[in-house]
Amino acid sequence: DDAVFFKGIEKIPYKPDAGPSESLVYKHYNPSQVVRGKTMEEWLRFSVCFWHTFRGTGADPFGFPTLVRPWDDGSNTMENARRRLRAGFEFFQKLGVKYWTFHDRDVAPEGSNLSESNQNLDKIVELAQELQAKTGVKLLWATCNLFAHPRYMNGASTNPDAHVFAYAAAQVKKGLDVALKLGAENFVFWGGREGFHSLLNTNVRAELDHMATFFRLAIAYKKKIGFNGVFLIEPKPKEPTKHQYDYDAMTVIAFLRTYGLEKEIKLNIEPNHTTLAGHSYEHDVVMASAYNMLGSVDSNTGSPDLGWDTDQFPMDVKNATLLMKVLLRQGGLQPGGLNFDCKVRRESTDLKDMFISHIGAMDTFARALKCAAKIFDEEVISKQVEERYKTFQSGIGAKIESGDTTLEELEEYVLQNGEPSQISGQQEHFENMLNYYL
Amino acid sequence: DDAVFFKGIEKIPYKPDAGPSESLVYKHYNPSQVVRGKTMEEWLRFSVCFWHTFRGTGADPFGFPTLVRPWDDGSNTMENARRRLRAGFEFFQKLGVKYWTFHDRDVAPEGSNLSESNQNLDKIVELAQELQAKTGVKLLWATCNLFAHPRYMNGASTNPDAHVFAYAAAQVKKGLDVALKLGAENFVFWGGREGFHSLLNTNVRAELDHMATFFRLAIAYKKKIGFNGVFLIEPKPKEPTKHQYDYDAMTVIAFLRTYGLEKEIKLNIEPNHTTLAGHSYEHDVVMASAYNMLGSVDSNTGSPDLGWDTDQFPMDVKNATLLMKVLLRQGGLQPGGLNFDCKVRRESTDLKDMFISHIGAMDTFARALKCAAKIFDEEVISKQVEERYKTFQSGIGAKIESGDTTLEELEEYVLQNGEPSQISGQQEHFENMLNYYL
Amino acid sequence: DDAVFFKGIEKIPYKPDAGPSESLVYKHYNPSQVVRGKTMEEWLRFSVCFWHTFRGTGADPFGFPTLVRPWDDGSNTMENARRRLRAGFEFFQKLGVKYWTFHDRDVAPEGSNLSESNQNLDKIVELAQELQAKTGVKLLWATCNLFAHPRYMNGASTNPDAHVFAYAAAQVKKGLDVALKLGAENFVFWGGREGFHSLLNTNVRAELDHMATFFRLAIAYKKKIGFNGVFLIEPKPKEPTKHQYDYDAMTVIAFLRTYGLEKEIKLNIEPNHTTLAGHSYEHDVVMASAYNMLGSVDSNTGSPDLGWDTDQFPMDVKNATLLMKVLLRQGGLQPGGLNFDCKVRRESTDLKDMFISHIGAMDTFARALKCAAKIFDEEVISKQVEERYKTFQSGIGAKIESGDTTLEELEEYVLQNGEPSQISGQQEHFENMLNYYL
Amino acid sequence: DDAVFFKGIEKIPYKPDAGPSESLVYKHYNPSQVVRGKTMEEWLRFSVCFWHTFRGTGADPFGFPTLVRPWDDGSNTMENARRRLRAGFEFFQKLGVKYWTFHDRDVAPEGSNLSESNQNLDKIVELAQELQAKTGVKLLWATCNLFAHPRYMNGASTNPDAHVFAYAAAQVKKGLDVALKLGAENFVFWGGREGFHSLLNTNVRAELDHMATFFRLAIAYKKKIGFNGVFLIEPKPKEPTKHQYDYDAMTVIAFLRTYGLEKEIKLNIEPNHTTLAGHSYEHDVVMASAYNMLGSVDSNTGSPDLGWDTDQFPMDVKNATLLMKVLLRQGGLQPGGLNFDCKVRRESTDLKDMFISHIGAMDTFARALKCAAKIFDEEVISKQVEERYKTFQSGIGAKIESGDTTLEELEEYVLQNGEPSQISGQQEHFENMLNYYL
Repeated sequence: DDAVFFKGIEKIPYKPDAGPSESLVYKHYNPSQVVRGKTMEEWLRFSVCFWHTFRGTGADPFGFPTLVRPWDDGSNTMENARRRLRAGFEFFQKLGVKYWTFHDRDVAPEGSNLSESNQNLDKIVELAQELQAKTGVKLLWATCNLFAHPRYMNGASTNPDAHVFAYAAAQVKKGLDVALKLGAENFVFWGGREGFHSLLNTNVRAELDHMATFFRLAIAYKKKIGFNGVFLIEPKPKEPTKHQYDYDAMTVIAFLRTYGLEKEIKLNIEPNHTTLAGHSYEHDVVMASAYNMLGSVDSNTGSPDLGWDTDQFPMDVKNATLLMKVLLRQGGLQPGGLNFDCKVRRESTDLKDMFISHIGAMDTFARALKCAAKIFDEEVISKQVEERYKTFQSGIGAKIESGDTTLEELEEYVLQNGEPSQISGQQEHFENMLNYYL
Repeated sequence: DDAVFFKGIEKIPYKPDAGPSESLVYKHYNPSQVVRGKTMEEWLRFSVCFWHTFRGTGADPFGFPTLVRPWDDGSNTMENARRRLRAGFEFFQKLGVKYWTFHDRDVAPEGSNLSESNQNLDKIVELAQELQAKTGVKLLWATCNLFAHPRYMNGASTNPDAHVFAYAAAQVKKGLDVALKLGAENFVFWGGREGFHSLLNTNVRAELDHMATFFRLAIAYKKKIGFNGVFLIEPKPKEPTKHQYDYDAMTVIAFLRTYGLEKEIKLNIEPNHTTLAGHSYEHDVVMASAYNMLGSVDSNTGSPDLGWDTDQFPMDVKNATLLMKVLLRQGGLQPGGLNFDCKVRRESTDLKDMFISHIGAMDTFARALKCAAKIFDEEVISKQVEERYKTFQSGIGAKIESGDTTLEELEEYVLQNGEPSQISGQQEHFENMLNYYL
Repeated sequence: DDAVFFKGIEKIPYKPDAGPSESLVYKHYNPSQVVRGKTMEEWLRFSVCFWHTFRGTGADPFGFPTLVRPWDDGSNTMENARRRLRAGFEFFQKLGVKYWTFHDRDVAPEGSNLSESNQNLDKIVELAQELQAKTGVKLLWATCNLFAHPRYMNGASTNPDAHVFAYAAAQVKKGLDVALKLGAENFVFWGGREGFHSLLNTNVRAELDHMATFFRLAIAYKKKIGFNGVFLIEPKPKEPTKHQYDYDAMTVIAFLRTYGLEKEIKLNIEPNHTTLAGHSYEHDVVMASAYNMLGSVDSNTGSPDLGWDTDQFPMDVKNATLLMKVLLRQGGLQPGGLNFDCKVRRESTDLKDMFISHIGAMDTFARALKCAAKIFDEEVISKQVEERYKTFQSGIGAKIESGDTTLEELEEYVLQNGEPSQISGQQEHFENMLNYYL
Repeated sequence: DDAVFFKGIEKIPYKPDAGPSESLVYKHYNPSQVVRGKTMEEWLRFSVCFWHTFRGTGADPFGFPTLVRPWDDGSNTMENARRRLRAGFEFFQKLGVKYWTFHDRDVAPEGSNLSESNQNLDKIVELAQELQAKTGVKLLWATCNLFAHPRYMNGASTNPDAHVFAYAAAQVKKGLDVALKLGAENFVFWGGREGFHSLLNTNVRAELDHMATFFRLAIAYKKKIGFNGVFLIEPKPKEPTKHQYDYDAMTVIAFLRTYGLEKEIKLNIEPNHTTLAGHSYEHDVVMASAYNMLGSVDSNTGSPDLGWDTDQFPMDVKNATLLMKVLLRQGGLQPGGLNFDCKVRRESTDLKDMFISHIGAMDTFARALKCAAKIFDEEVISKQVEERYKTFQSGIGAKIESGDTTLEELEEYVLQNGEPSQISGQQEHFENMLNYYL
């Protein structure tokens, strides 16, 4: 099938001198450009998500679909599914990204029972294998949709009904088979319905225990079939539930460590979820990295004045730079990446808006990478941070650092040395230095 | 010293038939009344905090002090400190609570150096011992103020300067000595400055490591001196810092488990902090209890429409009932209690407002205890919750419950049994039942 | 057509001694019970909304429909529309409410062009007339859906395309004709898409001017056809747009007064929208009433910890009492009412949940009415509030009250009389008094 | 008095090629540089506020003062007041700003009664006149502190006690006299305590009426004495009160128009207050400008994840650009300006941090001015916005624009012309264009 779905749009070129209105070019993203020893493409590992970009309709809780795509007849047929997938790979290639991501139910229609759903999936996976091979586009991660079907309305692994738990388990089994087949580098769990709407009808501890069992079973199966992708939990505080058990990075770490799962599962952080949890944009990326648990990033954004998930394309160079600083410090995200879990606004109805939005986000991250790299290259900021902590390198500080001291010894130190000097935190100075690099 | 500070106010009586304007009586709190096998006093373990109630001035970021107390000359003298303490114990007794709480610096003035501060504290502690013995009022918990003095502006145990770490350590050493002497049943750590205002000048991992070391040193000293009180961390998301490391219950659990401290430290939950973290009022109490980490409760409240800590007296019977349900389920809070970390509004300037506010909160919890007890006595709600999870008691559910199954077996179950039935979550029905009991 | 849609459910009786699990009875709402000179039914003027209760599917941004109704085949046919309407009137009658509300597109399917849509609507309106006559259920208000169709994605009256403005105008013309025919007591405008997602592509002033023109045209037409219902704007801060021009009560008042429309339009306040705007639950009801602009109330609620519109049934007696206090003070809401713009949770999938949810909310308001009435009957609180302001009744206060003074005179007063006395605001005392009545 | 308070710091030079760590230079702000026909200095009209920068102590609700200034002995003496003022003018000059702002009580100590306070103020105003004359620094605006003194705890003009109203009136009378004497270009009212903590003890309408009377009296006096400065209300949603009557721009406009004050008073917008009200950073500036009510701007910022007023220095070039776009469009802010109602972090304890923070903010606005100017110069964005609304320039759109049409005519238009075409809103394209200019 050689249909062309995006007629009149060629592979997006790098054209650094393009003007403001020239929209189908990269002004900053130059995949082969080397930055601190790696190419931009290697650092950024961009991925397009299939759900928003090829299954999104523009519907919202107050409005009907607005996005009509010429290749999608709206039907639930396999033929339609195949056409969408082909359109997807044409898009990935023209955009010039090396990765994609999907949920099982994005790519293949759910059948009238599990066998039929699995068969549908198998057929589409064959086509996906073929298209991956042909284009060189790889699967950053796969995931199972355990939240959209009505059966999951009261949760999947945390459903009060064991039958639903079993169904979710069966779906993940198939999802792992598919991930293995398509060479997924990771496998994501987003527990959209794992939580509660009301504590009045909920046994929290029982549900958490079930969730832990679910992960243990998935880990056992993964090892059995030899799937080597990294398991990732994606935290989100709320929406669609009133409270999701995977609230934020630290909540997931508490859960994983309580149930002894911290060696088997890392985190996929989405900054839009982070801000919905009341943190700053970069917070969960920073914390997950500090705890050695950062596996991948869903690089979308929200509006700080909105209380729901808008999945906007990240366009803020300052925020992106804060994120790239973390990535550079930990040596990159591989085998994770920067997945665009973003959707065009429902009012951005032109086909070219699909490109423009991704291009804008990729250029934003490319600028951010260059800014962050310069910060690391020049070492002005990092040295001033180090300087703040230098007292821990010798004397009483070194004893504290090693843990080899006592309250008595520290009291004695204070009795001898009196009051500490006042040392400015210089926040505004650091903010100015950051602005210098933006 | 037999001065009477609250002239014209006698011990607050229980008078269930009092009218709306009769303010110096309990209409619901009857300490000796037995509820589900314990007296109200045993269940509720109310405690008055010294800081807000005897050191609060009514100042706020935009206004000068409004609360002028006749016994307090505003000076930093020991004599003033003693008078305040005597006034405090008169208040505790007239109110009829059995516990109090304080920070080291609330009760005794900070001296010009550590030795002097410690000597001041020692002298006041002697008076406190005497007053405790005389009145029978006990110390629910002590804590150290590691946030108000300018030396702690960049953190105490997480300060970039080791000298400040040492100072905080010395202060906690003394705090533990004092706690032991006064028979404190718990010891609280609130890390008001343990966090950051800007990530630009901060090494997060280093600071977390130092904080863990700090707790390890305190635990070692506690054991050495034979202090048996429970260590409690009080989570708060932000304010005064932009981000506090002890963000909420789950964040603290993640920290404790990462550093192997989870057996030595429990949580003191303040619902006003919980709501500032974006959760519902009862959320952290529920989660801490579900994780067996709930040690004590700071029973104050905020306004859901405000983004800062207002430390209001809890007056909402529904919220208090949700909290008492958790307490009844886990058999009470002892050795923890319900500490009023509350302050009268700065506009509530009459001496009697001090009583009225505490009485209102105590009556609210007494009503809540009666409501929650009736819910447990009648078992209507709990049985309907149990019913929701009954599929986990046999068959495939029991296998999941025990963890003794596999994804393959669960898939097979679904292939045999098809789609689960739809079961209503009945949230509104549960809400109506709760309203019945309020 | 005499089909019975809610088999096994009879008219909901008043049974004040029913137990917690007895769900299909009123325990508090007794329509004919007289409270302060009117019946409960006259004070409360409950109305069921057609959209949530008969068109809601349980779909959310992350999940497919869950609510399957036996009378609804999911088709867009007139036959289906008629069946839904008949089911609706059976529900209204069995529940025992006297009012309903709808959007044009809720009751009749949109056709392939405006004429066809209007014809569909005409036919359904005939049936509605018949059912209204037969049952005595009346139309509290009608409204036009100017937000769901893709044509309105960039706004209706504020759309950058004049053609869309015209379409919205045509739709409102028909809506007013229908409202007249069905005897609607009010007509509501909710500007769900009147706002912006980005200021970058928006001319705010032009859009506001167009919105004002739209209202002027509707007012002219209303007068021309002799429709006497009250025009109401329903404020909402955001969602689906990033920012809605009708943000909250005060924003709408500013708009109306700027464009000279304040005599022709009042407000329909929904407390869930109020809390999303950052205010307390009762705030906009209080402010609209203080400005003599309160026309009607959408009596639903949200969760204070959630940032989107959950349209939950109001179950909090304290909040409902605060609202009923305002209604009693202004002598009721007529010709407005308490419309339930509420939806059952998508997990509340049983038919009886439709009743249980409305019953719970109606009982909540009936309790609230009784509480508020007692507060007014006993006058304890109101007299203490009056007392606070008594200085404005004489002397210099009376001069201020009348406006008949000058800064010079007031300065002279202070020079003569010195510093004012400190007067406690007694907030906690007032809170305790409120609790007494709950 | 020729003391030098900032030893070692000279007038801050413009040095565009300075490095990241070079902190006492402007890299972008070049006062005499001409941008779109005016100098930077003329466009930006920067002003330093006296309260934060010379009276701020670094105290917060959880911590004692940290900021110790060598010229300030902490006393309440006139001598200290004079020294602070001299230090202030040295700072203004070295920084190179042309304006300052103050509250009456910032500059002169409150005396033991009104006469004494006024005398103190008079003496300081003499010195201020002298320093203004000597340095050329002018007064952007003056204001009265009607919120910090305990007498105002229940409000100033909205206090339930008429005596307090009178006191506030007397204070404003003096404030206006002073403003006249010092040639203030504006006079600001910030109603920090004009609102409520609880609706239970509050008569909202009475308080609003009193507030309106207060403004009427001030307007009368202003005219009487011939003070020509612009009256400005500064909205803030909450803090210190639970709810402030001047919630946001639109709320103030509703108030002004309801009481017929809209011709006498404009708005002073602080974006940090705007975000606390739930809007985006630039929202109130945009709305106030659209309603022709924008008088001046307090150019500080907050953190979107914090729920209280942090009064941080604005360092975000994107946000500042959005603001400068509005200012350029309305031809500047004069006689208003960009007042830095900002405070150094309490941890930024060095004297040079005072400079660094202001420099960073001024450079941010200088960059923003250049970006916004380029956007206007090139006209790419503005023309694309115009294009969106072009249908209102002819045909049916022109009729709508003029208001000269009817619902009937518009219906006829739709019947003739059918469904509007779908037109993409192109939000991401506009975002990309903005990024091009940053």
